[in-house]
Amino acid sequence: MANIEKKNKSITSRDEDFAQWYTDVCKKAELMDYYQTKGFIIYRPYGYAIWENIKNYLDEKFKATGHSNVYMPMVIPTSLFQKEKDHIEGFAPETLVATIGGNQEIQDPLIIRPTSECVFTDHFSHIISSYRDLPVKYNQWCSVVRWEKTTRPFLRGSEFLWQEGHTMHASEVEAREETLKMLEIYDSLGKDLLAIPFIKGRKTEKEKFAGAEETYSIEALMHDGKALQSGTSHYFGQGFAKAFDVKYLDKDGKIKNPYQTSWGASTRLIGAIIMVHGDDNGLVLPPFVAPIQTVIVPIQMAKEGVLAKCREIFTKLKEAGIRVKLDDSDKTPGWKFSEYEMKGVPLRIELGPRDLEKGVLTIVKRNDLSKETISIDNVVEEIKRLLDTVHHEMYQAAFKNLMNNITEVHSYEELKAVVNKGGYAKMMWCGDEECENKIKEDTNATSRCMPFDQTHFDDVCPVCGKKAKYVVYFAKAY
Amino acid sequence: MANIEKKNKSITSRDEDFAQWYTDVCKKAELMDYYQTKGFIIYRPYGYAIWENIKNYLDEKFKATGHSNVYMPMVIPTSLFQKEKDHIEGFAPETLVATIGGNQEIQDPLIIRPTSECVFTDHFSHIISSYRDLPVKYNQWCSVVRWEKTTRPFLRGSEFLWQEGHTMHASEVEAREETLKMLEIYDSLGKDLLAIPFIKGRKTEKEKFAGAEETYSIEALMHDGKALQSGTSHYFGQGFAKAFDVKYLDKDGKIKNPYQTSWGASTRLIGAIIMVHGDDNGLVLPPFVAPIQTVIVPIQMAKEGVLAKCREIFTKLKEAGIRVKLDDSDKTPGWKFSEYEMKGVPLRIELGPRDLEKGVLTIVKRNDLSKETISIDNVVEEIKRLLDTVHHEMYQAAFKNLMNNITEVHSYEELKAVVNKGGYAKMMWCGDEECENKIKEDTNATSRCMPFDQTHFDDVCPVCGKKAKYVVYFAKAY
Repeated sequence: MANIEKKNKSITSRDEDFAQWYTDVCKKAELMDYYQTKGFIIYRPYGYAIWENIKNYLDEKFKATGHSNVYMPMVIPTSLFQKEKDHIEGFAPETLVATIGGNQEIQDPLIIRPTSECVFTDHFSHIISSYRDLPVKYNQWCSVVRWEKTTRPFLRGSEFLWQEGHTMHASEVEAREETLKMLEIYDSLGKDLLAIPFIKGRKTEKEKFAGAEETYSIEALMHDGKALQSGTSHYFGQGFAKAFDVKYLDKDGKIKNPYQTSWGASTRLIGAIIMVHGDDNGLVLPPFVAPIQTVIVPIQMAKEGVLAKCREIFTKLKEAGIRVKLDDSDKTPGWKFSEYEMKGVPLRIELGPRDLEKGVLTIVKRNDLSKETISIDNVVEEIKRLLDTVHHEMYQAAFKNLMNNITEVHSYEELKAVVNKGGYAKMMWCGDEECENKIKEDTNATSRCMPFDQTHFDDVCPVCGKKAKYVVYFAKAY
Repeated sequence: MANIEKKNKSITSRDEDFAQWYTDVCKKAELMDYYQTKGFIIYRPYGYAIWENIKNYLDEKFKATGHSNVYMPMVIPTSLFQKEKDHIEGFAPETLVATIGGNQEIQDPLIIRPTSECVFTDHFSHIISSYRDLPVKYNQWCSVVRWEKTTRPFLRGSEFLWQEGHTMHASEVEAREETLKMLEIYDSLGKDLLAIPFIKGRKTEKEKFAGAEETYSIEALMHDGKALQSGTSHYFGQGFAKAFDVKYLDKDGKIKNPYQTSWGASTRLIGAIIMVHGDDNGLVLPPFVAPIQTVIVPIQMAKEGVLAKCREIFTKLKEAGIRVKLDDSDKTPGWKFSEYEMKGVPLRIELGPRDLEKGVLTIVKRNDLSKETISIDNVVEEIKRLLDTVHHEMYQAAFKNLMNNITEVHSYEELKAVVNKGGYAKMMWCGDEECENKIKEDTNATSRCMPFDQTHFDDVCPVCGKKAKYVVYFAKAY
């Protein structure tokens, strides 16, 4: 019965058992709940509101760069899914398949979409016929299903929420530009909203998306030293276009295949926020993605004027566009403090009778629990300033942590030591998949990406001793 | 190859073949496209943008009335679905069932959600334990799947987009109030956005939702005289709560079951817009739901100053918050006129060299194709005024059509004549399902709803001659 007691129990310490700490935070901050089918979760209001803020940010950016939203069927007939060979090979083992509709067996069983390249490309083959129809730049917000063996809230689930962009272009140059432009938008999401610095780069052949020519990703570093792929952008060339017979009549009178991209980001980002910023008191939310940016906790609420002043402040902040909550429930201030700390609310306002006399209030910053006393009259300006400050401090802390955990390695022993300890090993690599396989076998680390800055710092690959070709980051990853 | 030619071909006349006219408009206004799996459609950018506007309106209303968005799993284990008997009976014949996951047979096959009462109620049983946890007021935006035999774009599909609200309350009174409050929000959507007047009322026992105690609906009248159920709100009492063991400790120390509601509106509303307002030139969109509210078509674009002035007007309108498009493509003005008429853009601005000299422009209203010449200087105010005017006129026209097609009937012959001709027959009914069945058999009409105003106008039911109890509307329906 007693929800209060459950909430007040402390969570596992972050450095003692990171995995347990993570699931504790997911549950106790009321971000999600489990469901009886493994890997499917319930996105509770507080968790879903974070996703809505991410969605609003990205949706605006997508529209500003000329993309239109569409909605495609969630089922893919097996025959349609099989048209691109690499793609089906990559996804077949983790598909959920519907075989019965209206109590009848379905002849061409329906795969519940794990991703929609096939559906989009098939549609493109119907709507593209002239160079005038290009580019086509679409995006879709939906959920996708991948039948995963090992699952974890937000990080790896059988169903997750995402957006998938799909575009077609007349020229290779334009399609390649699109691929990188969308990667930049994901990167800006980290800077502007999530307070997460990403490592950006190209995936190796081994790690690229099934059916893509090139895959680019943004990679975040979690508190435990593991990497988290947080968004991907793919350049497809003409592979799918040819497989699905998408062609158009160009200005020069010739029939051609267009060039394609796709790109996606998902509710995984919620996992990134938790694991980059969270601490032993629970969630710590960056201000611009936080569903509640400021909570007001009245002290000695029954004393004359306290609640009235809190309400006045609430209204002022709300009118200024700040997402504010006044907790005037009959719970104790102490309970409220720990509740909103657990939920990671960036700023807390405390106001009691003595503050009221002096015309001041206290603001507590969630990221470092530091306190400031400010004049009530300046509350709107001060809160705005502090939201910026908290965002900045959180980004800087994450950036510093990232920088401290990138190590250039020059020998295989060094590489093993770095990835086993946690963090990125930056290595010169021969480009051979065998070396990736060996590293994976020995350490469980994978190549995360090859950064855009390819300034060489070694001549040979430390794994095999052959000529080094690429700068690449290795790390253990979620 | 030639998209242009296809678009220019005229559509079927509305009064000649309404069904063909409807699908012509759906396709030629580029609202949707077909897919290879029957009943699944592609929501193209123009169609999806209409849904986004509906969604934004409703989402704001839901949040303003204290509802939070969540996201629930799209799969429902068969065992979970079977917990409420009436519910499973109602939905079983039209379910899509996944039986294979990761190449393995699934023990408890997964139903792709046709609606989520079971999932929400199961979750509620985990999060509700005290009176302090009530009310719980959730909403979800998602797609649902119902394996339909006869399908039609937007009206009846195997997959459609919708929102489903699910709430739990401590008292019956509060739950009943919620049910009606949400019906009012759907009604306001008609008034404010869709320019569609609805008939509101309660469904009969025969027509109510599977598992509900009471279902309320809004019903719109299409141009062909058929009704379209456009939104429903259900009061569940404690039926699901008991079946799923949702209970809480009340203030008085007693364990109780809460009272439940659910309510939904879907992409069907796009079908309603098409069939209420469309004409022989294509779609006619109410201004506040239209993705493009005003299109600017330059005349003799090459002449000095024309395009520059059009761009200036475009910027002014855009800055004023109007959804405006400037079509400066090299197609002829005539082609553009018919294209944006087909797409139902509420207002068209024409501006050529002679207008420029005089400092005027022409505005054409899509709903009646009337023209006005106005001063360029007043363009923002005039466009705003005309958007209001068009909305008002469209609502009034639809309202007049509705009023003209409601007929009080006093005999069974009259009822048959009215529903066969098209429109609503308003009848006094005994309350017996047998009479509904007889009407259905003889005319294919169904009871749409029992209006809130139950002023009796006959003593006996014209079908069976027994004592009349309820005022009810009968009509053929989609």
